[in-house]
Amino acid sequence: MTSVDRWQLPDGIEEVLPAQAATVEALRRRLLDLFRSWGYELVIPPLVEFTDSLLTGLGQDLDLLTFKLTDQLSGRSMGVRADITPQVARIDAHSLAPDGVSRLCYAGSTLHTRPKSLMASRSPIQLGAELYGDDSVAADVEIIRLMLATLDAAELPARYTLDLGHVGIYEAVLDAAELDDEQEARIFDCLQRKSVPDLMQALDDVPEDIATLIIGLVDLHGDDNVLLAARELFADRAPRALAAVDALQDVATDLRHQRPDLPIYFDLAELRGYHYHTGIVFAAYVPGHGQALANGGRYNGVGEVYGRSRPATGFATDLKALMNLLPASASGQGAISMPDSDDLELLAKAEALRASGEIVINSLGAGRDPRCDRELVEIEGEWQTRPL
Amino acid sequence: MTSVDRWQLPDGIEEVLPAQAATVEALRRRLLDLFRSWGYELVIPPLVEFTDSLLTGLGQDLDLLTFKLTDQLSGRSMGVRADITPQVARIDAHSLAPDGVSRLCYAGSTLHTRPKSLMASRSPIQLGAELYGDDSVAADVEIIRLMLATLDAAELPARYTLDLGHVGIYEAVLDAAELDDEQEARIFDCLQRKSVPDLMQALDDVPEDIATLIIGLVDLHGDDNVLLAARELFADRAPRALAAVDALQDVATDLRHQRPDLPIYFDLAELRGYHYHTGIVFAAYVPGHGQALANGGRYNGVGEVYGRSRPATGFATDLKALMNLLPASASGQGAISMPDSDDLELLAKAEALRASGEIVINSLGAGRDPRCDRELVEIEGEWQTRPL
Repeated sequence: MTSVDRWQLPDGIEEVLPAQAATVEALRRRLLDLFRSWGYELVIPPLVEFTDSLLTGLGQDLDLLTFKLTDQLSGRSMGVRADITPQVARIDAHSLAPDGVSRLCYAGSTLHTRPKSLMASRSPIQLGAELYGDDSVAADVEIIRLMLATLDAAELPARYTLDLGHVGIYEAVLDAAELDDEQEARIFDCLQRKSVPDLMQALDDVPEDIATLIIGLVDLHGDDNVLLAARELFADRAPRALAAVDALQDVATDLRHQRPDLPIYFDLAELRGYHYHTGIVFAAYVPGHGQALANGGRYNGVGEVYGRSRPATGFATDLKALMNLLPASASGQGAISMPDSDDLELLAKAEALRASGEIVINSLGAGRDPRCDRELVEIEGEWQTRPL
Repeated sequence: MTSVDRWQLPDGIEEVLPAQAATVEALRRRLLDLFRSWGYELVIPPLVEFTDSLLTGLGQDLDLLTFKLTDQLSGRSMGVRADITPQVARIDAHSLAPDGVSRLCYAGSTLHTRPKSLMASRSPIQLGAELYGDDSVAADVEIIRLMLATLDAAELPARYTLDLGHVGIYEAVLDAAELDDEQEARIFDCLQRKSVPDLMQALDDVPEDIATLIIGLVDLHGDDNVLLAARELFADRAPRALAAVDALQDVATDLRHQRPDLPIYFDLAELRGYHYHTGIVFAAYVPGHGQALANGGRYNGVGEVYGRSRPATGFATDLKALMNLLPASASGQGAISMPDSDDLELLAKAEALRASGEIVINSLGAGRDPRCDRELVEIEGEWQTRPL
């Protein structure tokens, strides 16, 4: 192994160097402060948990994304978190015990065995907010509003679009279709990929009227006309889907009331995520960026495996992905050079300047740091800053 | 598996709930701001790296503490970082290319296969600062001063003691002793544990004058008299140790000049860390807390395996350990309840209050959040806050 190889990082595993790290940190603080101002309390779940608690009931997608480790102390299998949402659901279900609503938020590194999509990072810094204990459309609207406020606070240079979907529509269609598990998994996969040819093939031995419904789903994306078309398509053959269409309509109406200019795009084949969503799902996109900038949805009942089923809705974003959309933030703040001296007045002066927000850098023997635009000099017995 | 088992966390792997998470977050920001004001730039190294770059040249201790994973994309072995310092050294040696001094800092979760000491966490949140490119005592003094400023900024309720040691003393003694690798490893282990009986046994076949030197090391802890005793002990038989004793004296003098009351404790058998230190080593302790609160030392040449050998000195602390010493910080900030309404003036008012630092919580259907001490009500057509 040569020294050149030794500094290589694994594909999709990035380090963040000073200029960009400052952007990530500023964003992290601004967004956690935003969550706090909406009443969301910070929790810090651990990097790893037993796979029994990390993955139970959450489907195969998340399992495949999760690196497994053997705990040397207990011999049990642990997973490095690939998603923080299930951890927060566990905290709500077990570690906290509120009767009513709880609002929690988090920010932390996650790890994926493989990229979730082409070009995606395998080590996103996930930041998100979750609302437990309320099953109303109002709670979904609150979470979506908070997601939009998050993107606004990030001051992205591009305008974003909101995608709305509802897992209940797909479920109603499936119920009507009475497929076996294998067929269902295959169809789910084709729909996730929006691959019509594969879907046609997967529907080969499905009755024609049901196949029409499922293929119909793929075309149900676009503006409000989609909701009209959905009502027509499902009215007779999957009437349970209509409640989901109503919910989408309600959410869109609420959001537009406050943000009439918000571009909303309905996508009724959108299934998002790790199979754990149960209701409305949503995502924000900007043009030219394939991955969603932020996404989330309702996932009622995730706490059930921990002994406490709770309604839940939430969203998450990746700080590194947001950072990549932002212009490099040269802070431009100059620094003050101080001589390497033991003069107590100098040390006190440096401390005071630092406490006031200045950057004061000891010149040591090696000379001034290039960031310095001022220096501390002793003039008539007093330490003063002077431009360089 | 019952639902009771599912929420168990592995031993030494903790979650941090809201009251304490707020303390950790406040501390994290305060300390990173402090580092910034001293000229230390933030970097964000990844959670995992190839073991070839994470562990090369750093000795067996760190290797044993590191969880290994197989990268599915490359088939190569990766490690979950057990220590962030080597990652930052890699960043200095490869990703940045300064000619002079570079100052870097970081904060992030780490993971240990087993606790480093009894009761220690296996998932510390490591926060630290590193100074590269300067081999002077002044650089060591800067890093120790920054470590002390860090503990001061944390506002710990207890007074701390500074422990100073120097790896060069042990190395000079070893050089004089001409031991084989196995003997050396055994003696290192006994010294780390400060176990005199084991040490006596390990020194069985070592010449008596050398054995006396090594056993003498164990007693060389205490106040400044230790340095006098060391000079006497080493003058003839390990004169190279005297330079290290001088360096300790210089550092102590410099530190006391600014902080005459700082309790300094010399411990010349202190070897700290993962075998990677090469010069002065230091740690801060508070009474009744076995683990060091913060520690560090000089570790020249770590960048060599990446093709760029650099002098280096730095320190780190664990945010969770600091948090455990702090009184629970009930923020005490009350919140404002807002009705769940689509009134645009109400939404604008809530937004303005949040931007001003208030917490405004939608009451949804479920009723008011218990944190609320005020509510938004419409009085004569205007939304106003009113005490509850």
